[in-house]
Amino acid sequence: MNYCSVCGGKVSRRVPSDDTLARDVCDACGVIHYENPKLIVGCIAEWQGRILLCRRAIEPRYGLWTVPAGYMELGETTQQGAARETLEEAGARVEVLEPYALYNIPHISQVYLLFRARLLDDHFAPGTESLEVRLCDEAQVPWSDLAFATVRNALTRYFNDQRNGHFALHTGTIEALPRPRG
Amino acid sequence: MNYCSVCGGKVSRRVPSDDTLARDVCDACGVIHYENPKLIVGCIAEWQGRILLCRRAIEPRYGLWTVPAGYMELGETTQQGAARETLEEAGARVEVLEPYALYNIPHISQVYLLFRARLLDDHFAPGTESLEVRLCDEAQVPWSDLAFATVRNALTRYFNDQRNGHFALHTGTIEALPRPRG
Repeated sequence: MNYCSVCGGKVSRRVPSDDTLARDVCDACGVIHYENPKLIVGCIAEWQGRILLCRRAIEPRYGLWTVPAGYMELGETTQQGAARETLEEAGARVEVLEPYALYNIPHISQVYLLFRARLLDDHFAPGTESLEVRLCDEAQVPWSDLAFATVRNALTRYFNDQRNGHFALHTGTIEALPRPRG
Repeated sequence: MNYCSVCGGKVSRRVPSDDTLARDVCDACGVIHYENPKLIVGCIAEWQGRILLCRRAIEPRYGLWTVPAGYMELGETTQQGAARETLEEAGARVEVLEPYALYNIPHISQVYLLFRARLLDDHFAPGTESLEVRLCDEAQVPWSDLAFATVRNALTRYFNDQRNGHFALHTGTIEALPRPRG
């Protein structure tokens, strides 16, 4: 951030009085611009024991597989956001059930919240952000071509819980990978 | 938003290509400024069956009671944020346990995530944002002086679960109150 979005003045990075963290503060009008983590919402959507996966048509991780999920938008609930992303990316209508996976990704200031969901019918089709959409049982999941650690972790636990007939909320933190040497 | 925070140019509200919602887009450099809901994290922190409440020293709801909670910050996990807010507002150190309450507040684009937590000792003291901090059992909670619907809802369920000896994640949506007539 270089300029104040309210008045167009220059901003400086400093700790406001009564605060403990550095913020972007406008030198002209004094407005403090807070920045906070983003919430990504999505669905593990099931139809007759199989779950819905999308092959990404966008970066990052173009061509790899994921569950339908994306940034929560203003004015919606987490469940509405999860259903919207499933419709947009997979052309599928769902009943959203309980929260299933909550993952922190602190090095990129994201929180992932995935819900269990039930497809309302077996109609689906790739949206503009997907190359392909498929229903997969555990053996059909492209385990070596998954886009994100959150998705691998959540799906591993999901199929395990599915076998045991009991789904419980899972929480976890995805750490940054160490930088490659050299 | 009036000005681009990157280049200082004027922004317009419009739907970018490949998008479905109106965003603030810079007329000069073309950057799209996304705005997303904020996550509020906090603790229902227990010590020998009683839970920790803070009386607010700030607006909104100055003088009313709440659990320690606040905006999640960049670079932290939800659990770290919940523990930090409990230390800042109530001077209390906690072990954060499981997620307990997840509330959508779509009309103000907020998501509340409250964890169960255990106080590490019985030392606590009001921080700059609290007038007073107290441990309360169910009868001691100032039920008619609670600051937020989320807090009333979560505490009611918490004491019920405490009686039953089983805590499960609760989800809900807080709707906007109708505007007063006249």
